[in-house]
Amino acid sequence: MTETDGQTDFDVLVAGAGPAGLTAGMYSARQGLTTAVVTSDVGGQAAWAGRIDNYLGWQAITGPELVAAFREHVSLFGVRCFEGRLVSAIVPDGPGFSVYTREGDTFHALAVIIATGKAPNRLAVPGETELIGRGVSYCATCDAAFFSRRDVAVVGPGESAADAALQLAALGVNRVTVLTSAPLKAPSAVLERITAEPSITVRERVKVTRIEGKDRVTGVALVDKATSIEEILPVAGVFIETGAIAAAEFTAGLVDVNGKGEIIVDRSCATSHPGIYAAGDVTNGLGKQVIIAAGEGARAAIAAGRDLKRR
Amino acid sequence: MTETDGQTDFDVLVAGAGPAGLTAGMYSARQGLTTAVVTSDVGGQAAWAGRIDNYLGWQAITGPELVAAFREHVSLFGVRCFEGRLVSAIVPDGPGFSVYTREGDTFHALAVIIATGKAPNRLAVPGETELIGRGVSYCATCDAAFFSRRDVAVVGPGESAADAALQLAALGVNRVTVLTSAPLKAPSAVLERITAEPSITVRERVKVTRIEGKDRVTGVALVDKATSIEEILPVAGVFIETGAIAAAEFTAGLVDVNGKGEIIVDRSCATSHPGIYAAGDVTNGLGKQVIIAAGEGARAAIAAGRDLKRR
Repeated sequence: MTETDGQTDFDVLVAGAGPAGLTAGMYSARQGLTTAVVTSDVGGQAAWAGRIDNYLGWQAITGPELVAAFREHVSLFGVRCFEGRLVSAIVPDGPGFSVYTREGDTFHALAVIIATGKAPNRLAVPGETELIGRGVSYCATCDAAFFSRRDVAVVGPGESAADAALQLAALGVNRVTVLTSAPLKAPSAVLERITAEPSITVRERVKVTRIEGKDRVTGVALVDKATSIEEILPVAGVFIETGAIAAAEFTAGLVDVNGKGEIIVDRSCATSHPGIYAAGDVTNGLGKQVIIAAGEGARAAIAAGRDLKRR
Repeated sequence: MTETDGQTDFDVLVAGAGPAGLTAGMYSARQGLTTAVVTSDVGGQAAWAGRIDNYLGWQAITGPELVAAFREHVSLFGVRCFEGRLVSAIVPDGPGFSVYTREGDTFHALAVIIATGKAPNRLAVPGETELIGRGVSYCATCDAAFFSRRDVAVVGPGESAADAALQLAALGVNRVTVLTSAPLKAPSAVLERITAEPSITVRERVKVTRIEGKDRVTGVALVDKATSIEEILPVAGVFIETGAIAAAEFTAGLVDVNGKGEIIVDRSCATSHPGIYAAGDVTNGLGKQVIIAAGEGARAAIAAGRDLKRR
């Protein structure tokens, strides 16, 4: 990807450069459309992953390595990348859209693909950020397989935490402790399965205060809310399942979103607003996975190209 | 992937082993579900591709190389692969399905993922099969970029052929000749763009009789239907756009399909029949691309896993 020479008008503008945004940029440029990617950083959540072993074709690769391969690949197609810019508003303008950034740029594009992803809620406790990818994970589907026969904790109040615990148990983790500050809330069928699974323990009414470990996670500090007694639970992994926020506030009022703030798209990745598409974790799709996001990015770009041709 | 030891009961059975089927198998096994892939061959249409340069992370790879990487990757996850078997029927049976093959096998699975792809209609003329991947292509989106500044022909009667011609022209092909046995049929806006594009010529009422070339395509033989005069049009590429058939006749009556025989799925890749999912080119989705199919395979397996957990 190359920096711009002052060009601000494009056929297609992609907001975000995780797997969805990079694939969208590549597929857009490959259709002969002038394409800009506007993003705060390249790689998205994939850049945070300790190891990725489910991107078909790469047996095991770290997040940063996969992102480097993506970046190099995309640069071959003449996509213009504007890094260090956060899209702050999209406004319909003439036959397309004006796109503004927090840094003061104004772009114009005939079609916009939103691929700004999802930001997991942080626990905001000491040790959390330092140990991401080294025992701290925000995605049980992605990382469960790395904790076979180890003890892990899942932190969260609801169904995501319960699902993560069941998934970890099914994949041969030794012991899963679910830590929640209130009673665990999930559909009764799920709660029954949690109760029936001998390797899962639920600790309710506890507060996580710290994640311990130097190079890797060694334990989690928690306080019983009734007694205020602190203890250290020794674990090799902490799965944080406290929800995530779709990073698309800047689309407020322009496209339809669901209760989680996720952009609602159809099977072609079209939003409720003609000319605006969305792909990847920012959408209402099932499965927050690199390969799914990349596939959606391709589909959004093909839909945008088809619609532009027909104008 | 390993051959079976007689096991015929699985949590999840995947029909087909192109990018969608292989990814579905991997994601299914990775959730701790016993998983079988039943397929006539491994690789699907990707195995036919001369060069793939739009699978994010691989800068340029031949179809067979990418398929080899996929196959090796999937083998790590304990997926059971039954090759040389064509699924011939899926019948609801108890809490799941009995799955029959043309070769006489019977499997049972709690959930079925259909990823049997799409078979492009062949012209059935001499030279066609021999030169697939060496100038003969069934996918302009995939291969247009390889014919920059070359002359190519597009063979087909309708909108797919028109779209392919516009796409090829936009990507800097020197001259595109559309060959059709009747008048070209497409929406008027598309026909107007075809007429306005100086690099596109439409030859109507001609019949393609042969594709010429030894190592690579060098020309296409055509006969004027009015005069019966044969001529050779020198081209480096022949894009065949005569439609494709979703390879899912064996689902007849069980799941809803559209007018093209494609299986209708929702955004989670669920079909109209509970417990049956579909992914990739066999579905009604936009964009027949490796990365899109792989993403859908992952999504279908995640949906199947979620639904099985909740039973």
